[in-house]
Amino acid sequence: MNNKPANAHGWLEALGKALEPVMLVMGVVSPLATIPQILKLYGSQSHHAVGLSLTTWVMYSLIACLWTIYGFYHRNPTIWVGNGLGFFMYLTMVAGIYMHTGGTW
Amino acid sequence: MNNKPANAHGWLEALGKALEPVMLVMGVVSPLATIPQILKLYGSQSHHAVGLSLTTWVMYSLIACLWTIYGFYHRNPTIWVGNGLGFFMYLTMVAGIYMHTGGTW
Repeated sequence: MNNKPANAHGWLEALGKALEPVMLVMGVVSPLATIPQILKLYGSQSHHAVGLSLTTWVMYSLIACLWTIYGFYHRNPTIWVGNGLGFFMYLTMVAGIYMHTGGTW
Repeated sequence: MNNKPANAHGWLEALGKALEPVMLVMGVVSPLATIPQILKLYGSQSHHAVGLSLTTWVMYSLIACLWTIYGFYHRNPTIWVGNGLGFFMYLTMVAGIYMHTGGTW
């Protein structure tokens, strides 16, 4: 079964190629997808803030910050646009969790 | 002020270069940072699951899945390792939120 041609996974090639021009857009989808979570935290569900992990969102912020720096270094907007926006969103989560719980893990 | 040398932001160059060999590690930090959030969701704070946005975590899963495919296409482990692990983590969040709320936004 090792004599399969390299394009045996043709769907992977096709999908990978199709994703190429939309990577910048994909990079901002995750940060934007954080908006419903932010609305819950600051809005109707703020009394459930303790169910959110401050550790997780602090780490998300830190990593997004490092990727933003890395993207600037490579002058690659595909990296820094999404991560810069992500850093802002995750920091908003950190602030909200701290504000509504006074500190949690 | 436009005659600044290119290395006026020397700290950016230095940090960007320092990050280069640790990008694969950085790629798995965010997925691993999701563990405390998963523990809260499945453990002591599961009654606060409604404070979590199903929309956000479904989108995180979807995007991580697309990045994993993109990383496979480019045979780039720096992309697919972290995103593959992320896909698994975010899907665990989706399952937990659905299980503990019966569906929310």
